[in-house]
Amino acid sequence: MTTHLPAADPETDPRVRAVFEDIRRSRNTDFINNIWRWLAVDPALLERTWAEVKAVMGTPSSIDPLTKEMIYIAVSVANGCGYCVHSHTAAARAKGMSGEQYGELLAIIGLAGKTNQLATALQIPVDAAFDAAAPRP
Amino acid sequence: MTTHLPAADPETDPRVRAVFEDIRRSRNTDFINNIWRWLAVDPALLERTWAEVKAVMGTPSSIDPLTKEMIYIAVSVANGCGYCVHSHTAAARAKGMSGEQYGELLAIIGLAGKTNQLATALQIPVDAAFDAAAPRP
Amino acid sequence: MTTHLPAADPETDPRVRAVFEDIRRSRNTDFINNIWRWLAVDPALLERTWAEVKAVMGTPSSIDPLTKEMIYIAVSVANGCGYCVHSHTAAARAKGMSGEQYGELLAIIGLAGKTNQLATALQIPVDAAFDAAAPRP
Amino acid sequence: MTTHLPAADPETDPRVRAVFEDIRRSRNTDFINNIWRWLAVDPALLERTWAEVKAVMGTPSSIDPLTKEMIYIAVSVANGCGYCVHSHTAAARAKGMSGEQYGELLAIIGLAGKTNQLATALQIPVDAAFDAAAPRP
Amino acid sequence: MTTHLPAADPETDPRVRAVFEDIRRSRNTDFINNIWRWLAVDPALLERTWAEVKAVMGTPSSIDPLTKEMIYIAVSVANGCGYCVHSHTAAARAKGMSGEQYGELLAIIGLAGKTNQLATALQIPVDAAFDAAAPRP
Amino acid sequence: MTTHLPAADPETDPRVRAVFEDIRRSRNTDFINNIWRWLAVDPALLERTWAEVKAVMGTPSSIDPLTKEMIYIAVSVANGCGYCVHSHTAAARAKGMSGEQYGELLAIIGLAGKTNQLATALQIPVDAAFDAAAPRP
Repeated sequence: MTTHLPAADPETDPRVRAVFEDIRRSRNTDFINNIWRWLAVDPALLERTWAEVKAVMGTPSSIDPLTKEMIYIAVSVANGCGYCVHSHTAAARAKGMSGEQYGELLAIIGLAGKTNQLATALQIPVDAAFDAAAPRP
Repeated sequence: MTTHLPAADPETDPRVRAVFEDIRRSRNTDFINNIWRWLAVDPALLERTWAEVKAVMGTPSSIDPLTKEMIYIAVSVANGCGYCVHSHTAAARAKGMSGEQYGELLAIIGLAGKTNQLATALQIPVDAAFDAAAPRP
Repeated sequence: MTTHLPAADPETDPRVRAVFEDIRRSRNTDFINNIWRWLAVDPALLERTWAEVKAVMGTPSSIDPLTKEMIYIAVSVANGCGYCVHSHTAAARAKGMSGEQYGELLAIIGLAGKTNQLATALQIPVDAAFDAAAPRP
Repeated sequence: MTTHLPAADPETDPRVRAVFEDIRRSRNTDFINNIWRWLAVDPALLERTWAEVKAVMGTPSSIDPLTKEMIYIAVSVANGCGYCVHSHTAAARAKGMSGEQYGELLAIIGLAGKTNQLATALQIPVDAAFDAAAPRP
Repeated sequence: MTTHLPAADPETDPRVRAVFEDIRRSRNTDFINNIWRWLAVDPALLERTWAEVKAVMGTPSSIDPLTKEMIYIAVSVANGCGYCVHSHTAAARAKGMSGEQYGELLAIIGLAGKTNQLATALQIPVDAAFDAAAPRP
Repeated sequence: MTTHLPAADPETDPRVRAVFEDIRRSRNTDFINNIWRWLAVDPALLERTWAEVKAVMGTPSSIDPLTKEMIYIAVSVANGCGYCVHSHTAAARAKGMSGEQYGELLAIIGLAGKTNQLATALQIPVDAAFDAAAPRP
């Protein structure tokens, strides 16, 4: 079941082909996972989204690639996106996430989910010390 | 504004005092932030929550302390918990999160929020390759 | 801060006045809380919403009034609605929620928030036994 | 998999039959989609929900029918309701949503999902100019 | 589809076996539902989660067992966790939830979902009377 | 309260200044609302976000500008982003949203919030007719 049926051969559109070729080149694989085939419904959206994924997730930076994937999983779980949970858990494993790290990731996500609800239920006022505008000692 | 008014001196309850003393000892500070004062409404809930925070966030493990805080922030943002976003951003900074890392954390959270919505809108089927039960090459 | 400024005297509109009068009569109080004043922006929406609140929350039925409020709080917490958490926590207290019950309500909401995230992260298949269409022994 | 098994012939209940007949008449079709069959578990809930759908979505008003469906899709995506995303995407197409409009709808929903997370992560104070109570020049 | 493949015989791990045995004993059944098999990925997480479920849901207290399940369902619906909605709806039925109560539970959850969105859209200020710190008459 | 304190003069960074100048030029105003000042924490994130807002929201296309803002509000409400609800409600008014349209927008968002919860609670199977892959008559 899906709300959109992707084109049988989306690469007949040159903008789509250019993005798919860049995905294959950047990831060194022939595998184009479904989100890119579905986003081809709107080539401009496909181009922007791939450019952003490449800049944020695929460029060496101050957060290492595995940590990036674990953060992505965390957001996707809290937003309830099954597709994204699947694709980024697979990516985290491909980047070396151990079984132990996976268990701990789950524990953090679960604990955060719990205290998020508790703080919202109690409508706890934010401590003045946490305000970024608070004077620093 | 809050839905619960914590006791003026919650530590007259010995179970609450024991938890607060352990927080002060574990964190080496006199500062007890509001979530613990508010959770004292139910000493059993306070005890369980602190024990879990200590086990998950405060014990050396296969995920480093700063990464844990960034994952916690990610979940809290997606769940819309202002208190938790504040407290764990402060904790991440205390554990050394640089300005550059903070900017990248924001970029990952924002991008995930975007693709989460896109995948849900398109109801994209999960690629067979992402199934944990799929045969491994 | 608000996105809508309610009329100084919304009861000059006869449809709004009729709803407000029914609220006062049904609740036996002069207090009209803000949601009704804000919903007066659209009298049809105000009428439908009040009629539904009265039918669902204000009519004796198979779920007792306090339980109804606790369920309402639970949904409002998970949806992150501060206004609703405040108004229904006040309503639950007015209907007799004890401090002990409040602590347990928080514990259930927090635990559910945690296992919700865990089940989503693991993408756990639903047990066949839970399917309403499963054969009953 | 479902949590509720609808009656094989829900229309033996006269209240359910009356609603189903009104759905067929209003939509000029014999097709009763699943949400109505499932809501028949509680005839009062079915009646109220259908009356509200008819008043809000099926009555000519200041927002055109296709725009209404696109707004409905947007809420359903953000709330993660797969059933609703499917049913309202089908409805939007039936009301003339073009492929170009669909791509743009996706782009808006994705962008909003992104900036929603960013504003929450940064806990940005609302500009005074956005307050409905602010003085108008 | 799942993101984790549980061990064929998770009970070869003594910590997992101890939890599973306690589940069977406490519930007086041989049925171990999937969440416990999946959580066995991390024995410490499994132990903590089961201990919390037992303390919160399985211990006689000031909220009766059926009400607890209805609150759990409410949170799980709002958080969009299909697995949890299934497992706790089954549990509520096992604890005696009638068809009438189920219909009313749905009506409360639906109404709360509606007013949650309305209050957030209007950014309604919380009435001073709802503040737990407000003076009591 | 905020988690980030923006620079007093963010425009000393030439990348930030370039974006701010383009915002002023594109919108024909000197008013730079807070999200842009806060996003300046990461100039690359600021540049990408502004470019996307300009492409999606500020370029004439197949969805008119007011409809775009109403869709943006809908997502922001469901995601619980107070800042975004405020800024896009102000934008919708500036683009001509009437009081009547605002009331109807609220009614649609509220109704969708309600049926989203109902469909999730009942775990309603998607009708085959809604599948984009279904044969078209």
